[in-house]
Amino acid sequence: MAGSGTGEKQAAPPVSALFFDVFGTLVDWRSGIAREAPAIIGREIDAFAFADAWRGEYQRGMEGIRTGARGYVRLDVLHRENLLRILPRFGLEDLPDETLDALNLLWHRLGAWPDVEFGLSRLRRKYRLAPVSNGNIALMVDLARRNSFIWDAILGADIARDYKPKPGVYQAAAEAFGLPPESCMMVAAHSSDLAAAAACGLRTAHLARPDESGPGTGEAEPAVPVDIAVTSLTDLALRLAT
Amino acid sequence: MAGSGTGEKQAAPPVSALFFDVFGTLVDWRSGIAREAPAIIGREIDAFAFADAWRGEYQRGMEGIRTGARGYVRLDVLHRENLLRILPRFGLEDLPDETLDALNLLWHRLGAWPDVEFGLSRLRRKYRLAPVSNGNIALMVDLARRNSFIWDAILGADIARDYKPKPGVYQAAAEAFGLPPESCMMVAAHSSDLAAAAACGLRTAHLARPDESGPGTGEAEPAVPVDIAVTSLTDLALRLAT
Repeated sequence: MAGSGTGEKQAAPPVSALFFDVFGTLVDWRSGIAREAPAIIGREIDAFAFADAWRGEYQRGMEGIRTGARGYVRLDVLHRENLLRILPRFGLEDLPDETLDALNLLWHRLGAWPDVEFGLSRLRRKYRLAPVSNGNIALMVDLARRNSFIWDAILGADIARDYKPKPGVYQAAAEAFGLPPESCMMVAAHSSDLAAAAACGLRTAHLARPDESGPGTGEAEPAVPVDIAVTSLTDLALRLAT
Repeated sequence: MAGSGTGEKQAAPPVSALFFDVFGTLVDWRSGIAREAPAIIGREIDAFAFADAWRGEYQRGMEGIRTGARGYVRLDVLHRENLLRILPRFGLEDLPDETLDALNLLWHRLGAWPDVEFGLSRLRRKYRLAPVSNGNIALMVDLARRNSFIWDAILGADIARDYKPKPGVYQAAAEAFGLPPESCMMVAAHSSDLAAAAACGLRTAHLARPDESGPGTGEAEPAVPVDIAVTSLTDLALRLAT
């Protein structure tokens, strides 16, 4: 492991960059959408059901691009399409375009989990940091400004013009930093993301977010082999000896 | 102009992002290469002539990619090729590969002009900031770390997979931030860069670096119409009311 200082003869190269999943791993999308959507919609709705339904369309929205059936469009566009798809379930088909635009921007101002700002600032002393998210660059920039994340670069879907867990997204991120995959570590709350990163040769850290989609819904521990498993970014900073 | 508050009826949308040229505009490539190259080479050379010769191959290296004759390769690769091209002029054909690699990394640790760190930190209070350079992401990341630049994202050649002054580079940068071109301002010491940005609809600021390639060699003022002409980033921050 990075900085472990053990006497292994075939030591892996040290990790010099950390890549972060963002939705669920760094920011709390569910509370953010549920808290702010009702005021924008201006009607009584089941706000958590609305947030869950919207996020529930997330994978389907990306799938056509992953398969190549559709050319790359950024996540802002998919979020807007996914929103249209769920409106009838909440009797909201008549919302005007401006309201839909305002709802879509909620993804740009989600709040971070409480350990993130401090954890990232610690980790940045020793590692290059970048989001490797399916969120587009403008979305990542707004979340960073909102939450005081300092990134070295914004990598991820917009750079690769494809969506995780396609291998090209992880590979493009490592290449952008000019690093071999084994010098990069993917940090995520989702085992599927980590499995895909590991298959590309990246190191992996599982960050538990057990309440991601409501109490007890998230991964309390990894479902796949990982290099490190932690419960906060502060914990990761300690483990990586920053 | 941004924040001018004049009573114009057809006011342009406010500028919300600033894009920066890097080599020559923010960092002093000539002094940096000339100061450090001799120690790496280990022989007496005319260090400024060496720096000028290397930079002199810059446009030629990119031209094949701009015309489409060659697929995109990042500037680190072109710098290495350009280096090979100038070695015979200095009797350095016999330098080993490791020395050439070390020389190539000099571009990653150039120092900034004295006004840059403070100027960027002021401008970042009000504007999204990104380099829109022909330098690749890893190169931009290293220069940012070396000089305490805080960027919102790294845009430029690696994102567009083409080189300035091709319009796609400026357009890809505005699109990455989700902004129309007229909400973005290109800041550069080179009129050719600003003319190309303006042709894409961007606003422009000329930053004079009169000594870029040695005393009196740079542009003391713009050779094309620009929105603002300044002599330092501090000056730009004042003009943009930060």
